Amino acid sequence: MNLFRLYTRVLLTTLLVTFASGCTKGNQTTDPLSLWKDGPAKADIIEFVAAVTNKNGTDYVKPAERIAVFDNDGTLWVEQPMYTQLLFAFDRVKELAPQHPEWKTMQPFKALLEGDIKTVGASGMKGLMEIVMATHSGMTSAEFEKTVSNWLATHKHSRFKRPYIECVYQPQLELLAYLRAKGFKTFIVSGGGIQFMRPWTEKVYGIPPEQVVGSSVVTEFQIKDGKPVLVRMPKIGFINDKAGKPVGIYEHIGRRPILAFGNSDGDIQMIEYTTAGEGKRLGLFIHHTDAGREYAYDRDSHVGKLDKALDRADANGWIVVDMKKDWKTVFAPPSK
Amino acid sequence: MNLFRLYTRVLLTTLLVTFASGCTKGNQTTDPLSLWKDGPAKADIIEFVAAVTNKNGTDYVKPAERIAVFDNDGTLWVEQPMYTQLLFAFDRVKELAPQHPEWKTMQPFKALLEGDIKTVGASGMKGLMEIVMATHSGMTSAEFEKTVSNWLATHKHSRFKRPYIECVYQPQLELLAYLRAKGFKTFIVSGGGIQFMRPWTEKVYGIPPEQVVGSSVVTEFQIKDGKPVLVRMPKIGFINDKAGKPVGIYEHIGRRPILAFGNSDGDIQMIEYTTAGEGKRLGLFIHHTDAGREYAYDRDSHVGKLDKALDRADANGWIVVDMKKDWKTVFAPPSK
Repeated sequence: MNLFRLYTRVLLTTLLVTFASGCTKGNQTTDPLSLWKDGPAKADIIEFVAAVTNKNGTDYVKPAERIAVFDNDGTLWVEQPMYTQLLFAFDRVKELAPQHPEWKTMQPFKALLEGDIKTVGASGMKGLMEIVMATHSGMTSAEFEKTVSNWLATHKHSRFKRPYIECVYQPQLELLAYLRAKGFKTFIVSGGGIQFMRPWTEKVYGIPPEQVVGSSVVTEFQIKDGKPVLVRMPKIGFINDKAGKPVGIYEHIGRRPILAFGNSDGDIQMIEYTTAGEGKRLGLFIHHTDAGREYAYDRDSHVGKLDKALDRADANGWIVVDMKKDWKTVFAPPSK
Repeated sequence: MNLFRLYTRVLLTTLLVTFASGCTKGNQTTDPLSLWKDGPAKADIIEFVAAVTNKNGTDYVKPAERIAVFDNDGTLWVEQPMYTQLLFAFDRVKELAPQHPEWKTMQPFKALLEGDIKTVGASGMKGLMEIVMATHSGMTSAEFEKTVSNWLATHKHSRFKRPYIECVYQPQLELLAYLRAKGFKTFIVSGGGIQFMRPWTEKVYGIPPEQVVGSSVVTEFQIKDGKPVLVRMPKIGFINDKAGKPVGIYEHIGRRPILAFGNSDGDIQMIEYTTAGEGKRLGLFIHHTDAGREYAYDRDSHVGKLDKALDRADANGWIVVDMKKDWKTVFAPPSK
């Protein structure tokens, strides 16, 4: 009977181990934020996630209500020396200029065509959005998507010499995956054009098009050559920046997020709105402090200005993530 | 050794059965659309779902792209004798009238306050939406949500004597669940107010707020008493009806659905847009033919008019679901 018992025991153990590994994941003892250095920012994130997912705790939040919103430019990917979408738009302005003689005397188009990028930058978010919108209309939704995808596939970041969709922050990808593994639904809430982001956010961030909120041009349904199409009109529909961000969240998501992550003063209202909700909330800003690995900029930057948010962070309990101090790495190793 | 072998065999079988039932669902031999009568509509739906989920077939669609959109009024719940949201709005008009003396001479408010529902109905979708928007603004998002929830909890359908959220079509709930079980993401795309639906769609349809697309008023971010709030302004932001539906889909979802289900001419463009996509698509209309269990109406109805869609259905391959012939049941047994 000894042999019998031994045999039974081995069989049982083997099958139960198979059962356990087939049905559940093994114990995760690995660091969920391995690309984040140990420090207050990382600790705050992990403590927050633990609190809202602890069924027996007072801070528990049902999975359906675990909404996390992320700004895009400067929060998930590089926005220096200029917003990627603007570089795309600049290229389009040059290509489309022959069809728009009025641009020769109209700012900021005039400056752009003359190569005076400083004046273009000084026209601010509004001016920049005008360029974006003007170059993002007059075609069908499908044509626009194709133009965006082609451009991204053929252009590289001037400093990092790699496609823009590889200029994304690895610690943030890890955070997005960590949140999703903990039952969160992750959204982008960006001042950038909603349809400029949607062709690639799923592949790059794991965020599907329907979870992307952004600025938009007015769209019209038309029948062209007997086919129903959506035509992008030369008119700004919505600017999803500053006070527009909570509005965009209300329109698209319909519930108040419990976590919001930005990197500029344009994200203040989104983070205010998020953290003002009842229960435990988390608001975070990235502070770009890393000229070596990425860029260092804040109060005086034309792109991603971070000024008032820095002043108000402490009093509001917002976490300021210091890129240099808090991240072990910024980008993935270059692909071959 | 016979005993030894027998014991081992029983143990193995027991554990493997446990393993199998713990890790996968048992064979589903039950009818996934048990509330639908056998007939062409049911067969078409099941054949469509089988085709787009068959990995080895030419019609296979990745789960992420299995977007299904459903109209709400008359497609998921009752819209007769009047849209539920309008009945809510009518109540609100009466309550708010003292603060709006201009309504006494302004149609369709005048007619409504005089009890002349026929004239109100004749003002069409546009007039009706004006009443909705006028009564759906001037408060914060949270206040509005509370007003909606309170009203729904305290009012019943005049004929069916049950709460409106129990006047939902059981075969459609079954279809929504079936689609989700097959990897579809289900959305509402309704002419109704987006924020009127969101407080209850998750509980009633299993569709979370972020998957609801509808008409809206303009919203503004404000700080009130030191608290950030969203204030609903007295201005129509977007009308998600007719040609607005594909636009709403583009804005909110960002991909073309592969299945669209409506019940009126207001759903034609949504279904045209859906079925014009490449690959296998399914467009469906409910035809309200069931005066006994629900209502019978189509070409001449002020609410949910179904006229051109009926004429065009055959040529376009759209499925017309005959409520009387295709559904075994309409509503759930009344709750006690």
